[in-house]
Amino acid sequence: MTTTPNLRETEHDLAERFESFQAMALKLDMTRGKPCKEQLDLSRGLLEAITSDDYKALDGTDTRNYGGLEGIQEARQLFAEVFGCKADEVIIGGNASLQLMFDTLIRAHVFGVPGGERPWGQESKVKWLCPAPGYDRHFAITEHLGYELIIVPMTGSGPDMDKVEALAMDPAVKGLWVIPKYNNPTGESVSAECVTRLAAMKTGAPDFRIMWDDAYAVHHLGDVGDPVDNILDACQSAGHPNRVIMFASTSKISHAGAGISALAASSANIAWTKKHLSKQTIGPDKVNQLRHARYFKNLNGIENHMKGHAAIMKPKFDAVLQVLEEELGETGLATWTHPNGGYFISLDTPPGHAKNVVKMANDAGVKLTEAGATFPYGKDPDDRNIRLAPSFPSQLEIELAIRVVATCVKLSWARRG
Amino acid sequence: MTTTPNLRETEHDLAERFESFQAMALKLDMTRGKPCKEQLDLSRGLLEAITSDDYKALDGTDTRNYGGLEGIQEARQLFAEVFGCKADEVIIGGNASLQLMFDTLIRAHVFGVPGGERPWGQESKVKWLCPAPGYDRHFAITEHLGYELIIVPMTGSGPDMDKVEALAMDPAVKGLWVIPKYNNPTGESVSAECVTRLAAMKTGAPDFRIMWDDAYAVHHLGDVGDPVDNILDACQSAGHPNRVIMFASTSKISHAGAGISALAASSANIAWTKKHLSKQTIGPDKVNQLRHARYFKNLNGIENHMKGHAAIMKPKFDAVLQVLEEELGETGLATWTHPNGGYFISLDTPPGHAKNVVKMANDAGVKLTEAGATFPYGKDPDDRNIRLAPSFPSQLEIELAIRVVATCVKLSWARRG
Repeated sequence: MTTTPNLRETEHDLAERFESFQAMALKLDMTRGKPCKEQLDLSRGLLEAITSDDYKALDGTDTRNYGGLEGIQEARQLFAEVFGCKADEVIIGGNASLQLMFDTLIRAHVFGVPGGERPWGQESKVKWLCPAPGYDRHFAITEHLGYELIIVPMTGSGPDMDKVEALAMDPAVKGLWVIPKYNNPTGESVSAECVTRLAAMKTGAPDFRIMWDDAYAVHHLGDVGDPVDNILDACQSAGHPNRVIMFASTSKISHAGAGISALAASSANIAWTKKHLSKQTIGPDKVNQLRHARYFKNLNGIENHMKGHAAIMKPKFDAVLQVLEEELGETGLATWTHPNGGYFISLDTPPGHAKNVVKMANDAGVKLTEAGATFPYGKDPDDRNIRLAPSFPSQLEIELAIRVVATCVKLSWARRG
Repeated sequence: MTTTPNLRETEHDLAERFESFQAMALKLDMTRGKPCKEQLDLSRGLLEAITSDDYKALDGTDTRNYGGLEGIQEARQLFAEVFGCKADEVIIGGNASLQLMFDTLIRAHVFGVPGGERPWGQESKVKWLCPAPGYDRHFAITEHLGYELIIVPMTGSGPDMDKVEALAMDPAVKGLWVIPKYNNPTGESVSAECVTRLAAMKTGAPDFRIMWDDAYAVHHLGDVGDPVDNILDACQSAGHPNRVIMFASTSKISHAGAGISALAASSANIAWTKKHLSKQTIGPDKVNQLRHARYFKNLNGIENHMKGHAAIMKPKFDAVLQVLEEELGETGLATWTHPNGGYFISLDTPPGHAKNVVKMANDAGVKLTEAGATFPYGKDPDDRNIRLAPSFPSQLEIELAIRVVATCVKLSWARRG
């Protein structure tokens, strides 16, 4: 904020408007990046893609039976296209990529990773880099494991690499979270320079890991998506082939709770994953893998399908942006992101106002993601970031909800400055 | 073996017979408890139980979307009937109960359990009781965590409780594995006395856990199954409500690789599980849960369905038993089990012969579960136990395979005594 925020409306006007919202007894929820019914309906036919008479994978595997730890070939191939890697660098998981990430870190914690001297849980101290604003469930996993979470600012084109490089020299720093494309919640994508530097940088820990959550790999709002360089190739080229593990899922492509997930990594990381996975399970749900492989066929099939999502999501994002512009555009009170994809718009209020705004909005019947959630430990040091999740509500609900939020921002400023 | 084994055939005859089997270039596999195609086909219609137009749970939940950590109500109710407990004591998991068990032990290892003083991974030493012969994948999990595995003999009606009670006084002993019904591989079920003593016994560790894998809860070969008392109730009555965690799945009811799993436990254990599970996943695949709840409806529906499995399995078990009797019945060379359910027949050769028999059978084209696999660390101290898994091959293949095995037992004895 370089200029002093300037309100056109008086506190009295804003308070009256707030009360009129309250009188509407709204029940609007913009807390989570949850697809709406129309998005789930886009995968009409998925549930019929396998029948009791037609359940065999291309290689003849009866997908109903046990086995196949790494997933069926056509599902691995499908995700290989998404990741831009080879099918044998992919392992297909269950319905949640979050579980693949949690389990990967648990394995590192209990058993250690290739190139490490001991399990991370046996280190006297583990630190973890958390580019923020970021994804609360990421931070929660590393917090749950007792790691010290260190905030790294986002730049608009990925994490601040000067900071990452400096912090990574500490041998206690074992890795970082990255959402490379359309970061949750800032919507930014990592630059080519960021990928190169992440792959090439020196790290104090020999077993440093980048948890590369490509949750929005194909989730563009327009025709052309943000380009992101291939980090697996970059790490290989830089002589650190085991540094990165990539994750993705169909959660926001097909059915949020009943999709399939995948990870991709170097052959050493894949062998390591399989070694531990083989103790945990006999194999994944291959029927659901076949369902997805048949339904989407290939990356082109997914990309075509995603145009349907964009057609639903774009007007919702536009509604948020338009109301924010109308309400806050000339006030200088707030800034917000204009992402090319993903699930979120990130709103920055004046410092010290986010918690109050979220509370006020809640009092007016608009539930927002908890203020602070986008930072480690749920604590936004500037108390300014609010994550807006427009996917689930209808466009009309969104317009109303964002008007409430904007009014709260202005009223909070008018009252507390 | 109280009498000296007595062969009717000469070594020369047996060797000739063995060579004639070899000449057949057989490729028979009796290694794993894997359902055959006909068993999987019994669930015809399961894959059509949910359609793109009909995916809502009874309470209106859109099963395709995120959420519902503990599973949908009708799936919890279905497994509550299987376990004999309340629906809110049940959590529904993914496609593999093995994963529920692995994850439960990982949570105990990294975070500790209710009633414990510290995570098990922070104990200087953890020991684990392994009733044996038992399930190799159970033993593998606790071995993988670095626990010292202690063999407890099976009695024909569950683990030797005198030994369990004595060993459990050691505070380093944190728990034991139990397959209460139709134990893998011995087929025995635990007695009422065993359940009572497990629930009531004093343990050195305040956070002792019974991993109660009810994998074959409804998997009877005849009309009436072995009765097993409710251990959750027994533990509650004995003042140790948190001692047991029960596991089950539909893996050998519906589709082996694409079923649903469940655990049941006290409210404290359920709350503990959910606390950690909430960091690992947003929720399970509810579409597959609804598929199963709709298809089976209730315990009665499952029990009727299991009659179809029994009709396929019983003749296969009978074939094994008949050939064993014909070939080995009067020799006094071997003993074997006559289970009322489950997936296995357990064959005991003379001590020191199991490895040799498995190797010879393999040389004649019959793959058996690795000798020793039914004991911790894969080491049968008497080298006598062989697990026979008759579910997957056809009846004709089984008869041939068992004839090969029996010939190997006799030839091994004739040659090495």
